[in-house]
Amino acid sequence: MKNNNLSNLPNENKTAYVPFKNTQLKSTKVKRVGPEIQTVTSKMNKMVETIEEAVKKADLRNGMTISFHHHLREGDFVFNQVMETIRKLGIKELTLAPSSLTNAMNEQVIEAIKDGTITSVTSSGMRGSLGEFISHGGMENPVILRSHGNRPRAIETGQIKIDVAFLGVPTTDEYGNANATSGKTIFGSLGYAKVDAQYANKVILITDNLVPYPNTPVSIPQTQVDYIVEVDSIGDPDKIGAGATRFTKDPKELKIAQTVKDVIVHSPYFKEGFSFQTGTGGAALAVTRYLKDEMIKKDIHASFALGGITKPTIDLLEEGLIEKVLDVQDFDRGAAETMAELDNQQEIDASFYADPMNKGAVVNKLDVVILSALEIDTAFNVNVMTGSDGVLRGAIGGHQDAATAKLTIISAPLVRGRIPTVVKNVTTLITPGECIDVLVTEIGIAINPLRKDLLEIFEKIPTIPVFSIEELQARAEKIVGKPKPLEFTDRVVALVEYRDGTLLDTIYQVKE
Amino acid sequence: MKNNNLSNLPNENKTAYVPFKNTQLKSTKVKRVGPEIQTVTSKMNKMVETIEEAVKKADLRNGMTISFHHHLREGDFVFNQVMETIRKLGIKELTLAPSSLTNAMNEQVIEAIKDGTITSVTSSGMRGSLGEFISHGGMENPVILRSHGNRPRAIETGQIKIDVAFLGVPTTDEYGNANATSGKTIFGSLGYAKVDAQYANKVILITDNLVPYPNTPVSIPQTQVDYIVEVDSIGDPDKIGAGATRFTKDPKELKIAQTVKDVIVHSPYFKEGFSFQTGTGGAALAVTRYLKDEMIKKDIHASFALGGITKPTIDLLEEGLIEKVLDVQDFDRGAAETMAELDNQQEIDASFYADPMNKGAVVNKLDVVILSALEIDTAFNVNVMTGSDGVLRGAIGGHQDAATAKLTIISAPLVRGRIPTVVKNVTTLITPGECIDVLVTEIGIAINPLRKDLLEIFEKIPTIPVFSIEELQARAEKIVGKPKPLEFTDRVVALVEYRDGTLLDTIYQVKE
Repeated sequence: MKNNNLSNLPNENKTAYVPFKNTQLKSTKVKRVGPEIQTVTSKMNKMVETIEEAVKKADLRNGMTISFHHHLREGDFVFNQVMETIRKLGIKELTLAPSSLTNAMNEQVIEAIKDGTITSVTSSGMRGSLGEFISHGGMENPVILRSHGNRPRAIETGQIKIDVAFLGVPTTDEYGNANATSGKTIFGSLGYAKVDAQYANKVILITDNLVPYPNTPVSIPQTQVDYIVEVDSIGDPDKIGAGATRFTKDPKELKIAQTVKDVIVHSPYFKEGFSFQTGTGGAALAVTRYLKDEMIKKDIHASFALGGITKPTIDLLEEGLIEKVLDVQDFDRGAAETMAELDNQQEIDASFYADPMNKGAVVNKLDVVILSALEIDTAFNVNVMTGSDGVLRGAIGGHQDAATAKLTIISAPLVRGRIPTVVKNVTTLITPGECIDVLVTEIGIAINPLRKDLLEIFEKIPTIPVFSIEELQARAEKIVGKPKPLEFTDRVVALVEYRDGTLLDTIYQVKE
Repeated sequence: MKNNNLSNLPNENKTAYVPFKNTQLKSTKVKRVGPEIQTVTSKMNKMVETIEEAVKKADLRNGMTISFHHHLREGDFVFNQVMETIRKLGIKELTLAPSSLTNAMNEQVIEAIKDGTITSVTSSGMRGSLGEFISHGGMENPVILRSHGNRPRAIETGQIKIDVAFLGVPTTDEYGNANATSGKTIFGSLGYAKVDAQYANKVILITDNLVPYPNTPVSIPQTQVDYIVEVDSIGDPDKIGAGATRFTKDPKELKIAQTVKDVIVHSPYFKEGFSFQTGTGGAALAVTRYLKDEMIKKDIHASFALGGITKPTIDLLEEGLIEKVLDVQDFDRGAAETMAELDNQQEIDASFYADPMNKGAVVNKLDVVILSALEIDTAFNVNVMTGSDGVLRGAIGGHQDAATAKLTIISAPLVRGRIPTVVKNVTTLITPGECIDVLVTEIGIAINPLRKDLLEIFEKIPTIPVFSIEELQARAEKIVGKPKPLEFTDRVVALVEYRDGTLLDTIYQVKE
């Protein structure tokens, strides 16, 4: 176990961090911070002609922290327009603190790191060329990786102090009342962006759809907005939810989804009023479909569904099988489109979703969650961040946060191609095993020994093969052989925080 | 002119205050504060059995500040239940900081001041027995009177630091997701309460309608709530909007309303997309009705209506004559009831409504406002706080805030019984004359000499008699005679802040 290793950290990180203890967080006192704002009088005009003018008026200077949301995902046009402008203006040593980074942003981030525009990054994760760049030592300061619940916690307490937030919005009026449920580039919930708008000193909205004052519904209020820029396009609607709504035909994925459904249905949590979070991706959608059939058959209704929302979940809402959808982000256009019409599809911000240090996030109330894994080890620890080559290619997302549910299921194949999923030790620890209850693979399930209650239940169900996690690991190893140990340098490229801000793991530069 | 008089203030107030300068506020830097909260973990339960248990769990102690909202107005059952409990527990030297005080609360406040439970008060105003009690020297510390926009400003900057907020809500779930649009005691918008929930260290919800988790729509979110108490009743629905929807038959009031309408219609602001705020009371409702006829006749639509909302305004919304209603409070059940159904009836908080030190409140965008006056003097200064006897019998409400509109109309009779409305000097300065554009009385109008543009327009309209304000004052004096000068002691009983927190006026104890 190489987590909690503070010894190789740069000095400022070493002193700043408390090592991770456990996932059972205690109630603590938290002093919230507030932004330093410039008041807007009735004579002032928030509309500016260009992003450059907005950056200048917001007085962005060397060493400041900037933020973005990732609601536009692979269809994002905002990030690149803003970063190009900032680089052109020659502003340096910025901390980049977006809710997450998508492939659409990678090249700009890499160039901005190379030319000194960005010198620190905190994100939920990173993939593709940026992951490679960082993992191969492209930036001096380690990236700080935070979950979707940990980010608002860090913002509320001042650990992330956003000087200027650049927020793409599908609709706003000229005073900054914005939402993401109307316009040509809608994405539904502004859940991540709402936190930035509330806490950033300066807030700049970038829109491609300016509407008459006052715009409603108000997701981001005028009282939090400094400047508004109209651009041709904030994103490509076709790429916002790309790939998410695909329904899998892969028999292995369908088998896993079937078993996930069986585990849920046989668990003590599948009863009237239960709640659940599924993720995106083909298998998760299949789970939702299978679960729907069981809910109809047994006349069971869910009190709420949570998380990144997809159209199949909205279908359940519209059919009355789910009472409420609590919506921090929408993964496809179908889910984004209904938010304007459905009263029971409630927009929530990231703090409401998952912040462990407010007065109670929704994840505290969650019964069942299905999560994915790049790796899961024999202690049930999960890695969703680094590949088998040790390179950054994932994101924490809400993984650590939602894993606190009463029944946390990891849905994953034993192996992917020649790469084992079930391993002896995860390359990177993202979600501690003590949170994980059941691993579902295509050949059967493994139950965390901490959950004797579940072991007892599932031993008696002959249709669900139960293995020990060690057995599953051995099976994976038998298929793909013993993986060669990864080699890293002793240079830290990223720090993984647990959701409470303690240091969970360190990620090292890969050896060439 | 006796405003800005700091000489008689108790020491701590003298040093704390900057005297009022002018109503044209400059853009300034403001450092916002945040609450100190106790985090709620998934194992904790927010439901408590009694108000007493909630007060104890919230750790309310001597010297703290408590808050309430006044959305339930004369039908409020929450305040008295809470204050009785606090008094029983023997907690002393509290600062009472509600959004306003209604007659329903008066006796409890008086008793709590007498027994030392409450030693400081800040409010929008006070009436009846409490006004008499304070004006006759019933409390040692002067009451601080703040407008509905000034209060959130003071809260956001830490001048009002709420330790425990007691908020009556018509519906909540057991985790604190609350709204005022469903339940048996609905009042529509939670506009004032939302600010308290966001900034108070501890938030206690008192409800008479507990619903299954998760309750939507979410006006107050679970992330801001510590404890929830269920009681038999939070209020008398029949008294929440008592008197507000009465349509006047008084010919004098109708004449004034007719002239107010004429002033609006002939002003340069009555055009497609204009915005307006009317108040409550019979005359204001008549204005709304007359305005409606003109809007239909001239095919003019309002972009928004603002303020405390009444059913007649909602009727205009439903008929498409108003695009949006921005709703900080509802004055009658009709307006409260539609909020759940009408997407264009947008709930806003008090900061959004009128805070002069955020990034732009709605009042910044307001074209036309109709306000009332107990007194208006020849400098157009308005008093809505003290009677002709010098006794507190009013509230600032949004008066100072909305008076910043492009066209601010005071609608008032020349005299009320034997009491002149138009006077040489107001007893108490609440809204400075430089904000007031037109006074409308039953015999004609007076235009503020600062508004040469309006003078030019209305000189040419023979149907609207234009007087100088001095002429109107002389007419009033002719009817009721010269009022005897009021006599006060030199003891300060209340301080009037302007909306930016500067000291506008002082109110002295009346002579017996």
